Amino acid sequence: MTSLSNIAPPRFDDVLAAAGRIKGHAVRTPLLEAPLLNAKLGGRLLVKPEMLQKTGSFKFRGAFNRISMIPEAQRAAGVVAYSSGNHAQGVACAAAMLGLKATIIMPADAPAIKIANTRAYGAEVVTYDRFGENREEIGARIAAERGATIVRPYDDPGVIAGQGTIGLEIAEQAAELGAALDAVLVCCGGGGLVSGTALALSEKLPGVPVYSVEPAGFDDTARSLASGSRIANDMSNRSICDALLAEKPGEITFELNRKLLKSGLVVSDAEAQIGMAHAFRYLKLVAEPGGAVALAAAVTGKIDMKGKTIAVVCSGGNVDQAAFLEALTTAGEV
Amino acid sequence: MTSLSNIAPPRFDDVLAAAGRIKGHAVRTPLLEAPLLNAKLGGRLLVKPEMLQKTGSFKFRGAFNRISMIPEAQRAAGVVAYSSGNHAQGVACAAAMLGLKATIIMPADAPAIKIANTRAYGAEVVTYDRFGENREEIGARIAAERGATIVRPYDDPGVIAGQGTIGLEIAEQAAELGAALDAVLVCCGGGGLVSGTALALSEKLPGVPVYSVEPAGFDDTARSLASGSRIANDMSNRSICDALLAEKPGEITFELNRKLLKSGLVVSDAEAQIGMAHAFRYLKLVAEPGGAVALAAAVTGKIDMKGKTIAVVCSGGNVDQAAFLEALTTAGEV
Repeated sequence: MTSLSNIAPPRFDDVLAAAGRIKGHAVRTPLLEAPLLNAKLGGRLLVKPEMLQKTGSFKFRGAFNRISMIPEAQRAAGVVAYSSGNHAQGVACAAAMLGLKATIIMPADAPAIKIANTRAYGAEVVTYDRFGENREEIGARIAAERGATIVRPYDDPGVIAGQGTIGLEIAEQAAELGAALDAVLVCCGGGGLVSGTALALSEKLPGVPVYSVEPAGFDDTARSLASGSRIANDMSNRSICDALLAEKPGEITFELNRKLLKSGLVVSDAEAQIGMAHAFRYLKLVAEPGGAVALAAAVTGKIDMKGKTIAVVCSGGNVDQAAFLEALTTAGEV
Repeated sequence: MTSLSNIAPPRFDDVLAAAGRIKGHAVRTPLLEAPLLNAKLGGRLLVKPEMLQKTGSFKFRGAFNRISMIPEAQRAAGVVAYSSGNHAQGVACAAAMLGLKATIIMPADAPAIKIANTRAYGAEVVTYDRFGENREEIGARIAAERGATIVRPYDDPGVIAGQGTIGLEIAEQAAELGAALDAVLVCCGGGGLVSGTALALSEKLPGVPVYSVEPAGFDDTARSLASGSRIANDMSNRSICDALLAEKPGEITFELNRKLLKSGLVVSDAEAQIGMAHAFRYLKLVAEPGGAVALAAAVTGKIDMKGKTIAVVCSGGNVDQAAFLEALTTAGEV
């Protein structure tokens, strides 16, 4: 893989520029709270529900910002992305809205519904054998043949800046609610969402600690923050948090995260399901497992909530019915 | 019951005043759409998700507005409401936020969770035997003894004006989305939500037809609109849409609705569940059965969606886990 170490991380001004680009195209999701949940926790929990974002996850923000930045001369060649999940839908939808052709490289054994959804947004889907082929090589080849722009899932300054608009909105909306934040918790796969959010908050609410939250077995960012350098996961581990299974922190994202994050929290799959059940009961939101880990960390005591005001990002809600029903049933009444 | 025929219905200015009162206290819920759902329907469907409102339903708006209007001298005596559902929670939460004591009269056999929730908002719950006692008489007696203000669930100008803020927001948010509405669909029990919303829209988007949506067997407003006078339901009918089981249209609400509504649509319980499944899959929202009927009407062909732009109000999400799981399972993949 090409080294990205010569690419400068985004700055706060890039997040502001992203906010201008996505305005009127992305949903300005509200910042929600539930009085009954606050009473249960003994603190104030503010939830940023990015499952309400276009395509059901925050990924639309970064994709729309990044694609908006493609120079006019390169637009006709379109964009290429590789993803089996939320990034694929975010890129496909954003490209369609901006009038660019999108090619999404997905494993041939990806759930049919995900392939169908990506096609429904107007993208061309190219499938590959995930055991015999390398998706990055396929992406690079298609991009080279067509002159298309690759839209990476997280290790791209434009993508990170787009996700960072969530941090701007949290700061503005918390102020509107009269809430002084004690901490912000953000889920973390490759780190694009948490790094962008932390970048925005470092200017808007300096001094408020930002934590990454990862599923057990995929706590590469937590361990990397502790050690000071990028550590990979054992990819034979398993988790239901399919949106958060990056192999290791991104280069650009970790460059930001090691400076901006307080530390990394970790939740089990069972705790992620408890987070989903809280989103259902108290907030009336459908969270996917990976989208619920920050909420899960708050409601299962991974951070002290007593008398505190904590904001959490719920990153997405693309979960199928069977997995959702199983999560609620397993978690029981919360 | 006291006749309300001498009480003037609210006017548009009352809705504007309500908007000023609830600002910063109620959630300004977004107006959402899902590109994949739009593609499926061949039209544009905009959803106002009031399950994201404080207490999980739109009822908070009317309650907060009405309680805010109580003169200073009467505040110490508190408020009284009778409800086993969303109105109880809306009144309890709004009263607590405004510093008034709330007494909620609930049937002794109401679900324990609803009684517990209402108490958790700080209200005193007085239970009664729904087979041997009359809740309105109990409410009137408590109100008289204490000098407390009764907050009716719908037949009150202040309550209607509060619900009408949803119409103001729909008009503003549709304009922000560049959407010219062809119709607005609103669920209907006693008619407070739909009358207030129609009142606001009659000034903000004159000429856009507004339809009530009711569950089969409880289509009193549809039949009353057709006949021109208030017709009651057969209360031996049953529906899972527990939030919409009023006996007949309110006096004040019907005075507005007969002038402002185009007509009434009706959906079956099975269609309400299909609405819930669409809210889950495409919008990542938890809708209760009654909260999903307007969405259900749009997705099951009760109104022509082809090439049209339709807004629907999803009024609430207070559904227990078992009923939600059953709805998704019954509806299947949508």
